Amino acid sequence: KKRYNIALLPGDGIGPEVISVAKNVLQKAGFLQGLEFDFQEMPFGGAALDLVGVPLPEETSTAAKQSDAVLLGAIGGYKWDKNEKHLRPEMGLLHLRRDLKVFANLRPATVLPQLVDASTLKKEVAQGVDMMIVRELTGGIYFGEPRGITINENGEEVGVNTEIYAAHEIDRIARVAFETARKRRGKLCSVDKANVLDASILWRKRVTALASEYPDVELSHMYVDNAAMQLIRYPKQFDTIVTNNIFGDILSDEASMITGSIGMLPSASLGESGPGLFEPIHGSAPDIAGQDKANPLATILSAAMLLKYGLGEEKAAKRIEDAVLDALNKGFRTGDIYSPGNKLVGCKEMGEEVLKSV
Amino acid sequence: KKRYNIALLPGDGIGPEVISVAKNVLQKAGFLQGLEFDFQEMPFGGAALDLVGVPLPEETSTAAKQSDAVLLGAIGGYKWDKNEKHLRPEMGLLHLRRDLKVFANLRPATVLPQLVDASTLKKEVAQGVDMMIVRELTGGIYFGEPRGITINENGEEVGVNTEIYAAHEIDRIARVAFETARKRRGKLCSVDKANVLDASILWRKRVTALASEYPDVELSHMYVDNAAMQLIRYPKQFDTIVTNNIFGDILSDEASMITGSIGMLPSASLGESGPGLFEPIHGSAPDIAGQDKANPLATILSAAMLLKYGLGEEKAAKRIEDAVLDALNKGFRTGDIYSPGNKLVGCKEMGEEVLKSV
Ligand SMILES: CC(C)[C@H](C(=O)O)[C@@H](O)C(=O)O
Ligand SMILES: CC(C)[C@H](C(=O)O)[C@@H](O)C(=O)O
Repeated sequence: KKRYNIALLPGDGIGPEVISVAKNVLQKAGFLQGLEFDFQEMPFGGAALDLVGVPLPEETSTAAKQSDAVLLGAIGGYKWDKNEKHLRPEMGLLHLRRDLKVFANLRPATVLPQLVDASTLKKEVAQGVDMMIVRELTGGIYFGEPRGITINENGEEVGVNTEIYAAHEIDRIARVAFETARKRRGKLCSVDKANVLDASILWRKRVTALASEYPDVELSHMYVDNAAMQLIRYPKQFDTIVTNNIFGDILSDEASMITGSIGMLPSASLGESGPGLFEPIHGSAPDIAGQDKANPLATILSAAMLLKYGLGEEKAAKRIEDAVLDALNKGFRTGDIYSPGNKLVGCKEMGEEVLKSV
Repeated sequence: KKRYNIALLPGDGIGPEVISVAKNVLQKAGFLQGLEFDFQEMPFGGAALDLVGVPLPEETSTAAKQSDAVLLGAIGGYKWDKNEKHLRPEMGLLHLRRDLKVFANLRPATVLPQLVDASTLKKEVAQGVDMMIVRELTGGIYFGEPRGITINENGEEVGVNTEIYAAHEIDRIARVAFETARKRRGKLCSVDKANVLDASILWRKRVTALASEYPDVELSHMYVDNAAMQLIRYPKQFDTIVTNNIFGDILSDEASMITGSIGMLPSASLGESGPGLFEPIHGSAPDIAGQDKANPLATILSAAMLLKYGLGEEKAAKRIEDAVLDALNKGFRTGDIYSPGNKLVGCKEMGEEVLKSV
């Protein structure tokens, strides 16, 4: 039997609920493919702040680094929103990404035929949308130095951040994107602001230079403001998108909302080697935490990405994906994706339905 | 009779067509309110590059600065896309904004009942949308230093830009936004990324501090990634939005596409004093240039903003706005907003119809 160490970081809000459900699904899918998992649950985010006073305890970071893959629930909540910057759950997440060196964030935005009505876009615009956003995750303005708030020569406060990309950082994320596009429909759109930003000019130059190594991939470029429009105007034009950290943050959230089912969308964050980080795209939803109302499917599908991209266990991943479709086809819906005629279930029951089908 | 000097910058692509139509409308609306205009047409953008080799000639900048208001068509085109950065039409626009010190960019996104079907959003989501995005226009990452492409200690290229805001830059744009919200529905949403960026932490702090001076305005804060989602999920929640230069660039394009009628949307860019800059939100559309197909309404409505925000001539502005609605109510539509049952017209004919109603 193959054994894997999985670090579980439930986090805050609905995090623990969705992680507990996804863990069971992961375990069963693995078992049926001859895999065994050792789960190590560690405090993270607000939960860790309450427990030991920091959002990413040393032990959690170490456990994550020594694992084969990390499954994360969600972090954050009103309770810690007024904390100083370094004592906020979000900072724990940024440091975890940095510690794991997971520079490539893969965010699928897919409209399932079962859920096309959940989109606020017209049906004919939403249906068939199936794109993958490849977001650079450990560079750019999120981490660039200098940063901070200082006092200028007039004695007034000035806030500064630095958008910075070195050639190798662009190349490695571009390669992930070209490889991803190659396995999909062979179209890659690189999004930047090269008509204004120097960092984008270099980005475009490097991505363009790599294109010759991927003759089977059709590369295009788009300005970020236009991309924000095109995602609404005609989202089906996109197959794979690659972009920097901050543009990826904005566009991937926009794209996920287009699908109308943000409670459905998983993500994978990968490095050159070492464990990947897998988490739903949605937040910790403190308003519905502990009420058994959360949609666990995004976390369950994140577990599928963990198997596929993190461990290379495609068959076990496929089991989970099929089981999710099965539960949807049977009409089971949590509140966020409910429409009349279907069966409204809570987080646990949805989990059990998926589990049955695995 | 009151006289005003108006600098006209037709620019590229469909720019000259829409400017010529808007000029006539402006003239008639002014005339009926006892205003006279001296128009000075100046080369700008790609047209100026072809003529004198720079996108913003000294004479054009001077004429703009000495005018009472500037009406701009659109700039850019494939022809100049491969130019070096400082020889691109876009750079002319950035420098013009800087020269005129127009730090406040007002971008309305309104869904007219006549055009609600043009949106890709479902009717119940799109109808009634009426927001104003106040974008900071002369600061932030667009202009911050250091910037450029350099070689690092490993001999590799590095692209750098600086997001930077001083307290007074935030305060002055926030004041414009509070004043704008006050004249609208009294709700202001400030958009930032204060969970990651130091420049956003200062932004949020300054905006929050000013709120006590505007007790009649209800202030909220939203992260930019969430804003990109909420604009699609439930756009009606927004009244006035204030944000930095780059977030404003992205979100205002997204918002304008939500309305489905980007060919309809004007913008105003204002400074503390001195002439304002008024231009449609759409681009130069080189693919339909010179074919009398462009929708001139965004530029005509920009002329209305020029009267209202630039010259304080509200009555003349109202004449233009009413005339536009009149032409739409009569069923006149250019191709971009056409739907069956209406009368398809070109740029000139649409202009004449509006002119009749002024
Ligand atoms: C919570 C926040 C720091 C984070 C980000 O901006 O990366 C989140 O928005 C995301 O996209 O994962
Ligand atoms: C053309 C470009 C430089 C400009 C900008 O980014 O400001 C445009 O997108 C706009 O929004 O007016």
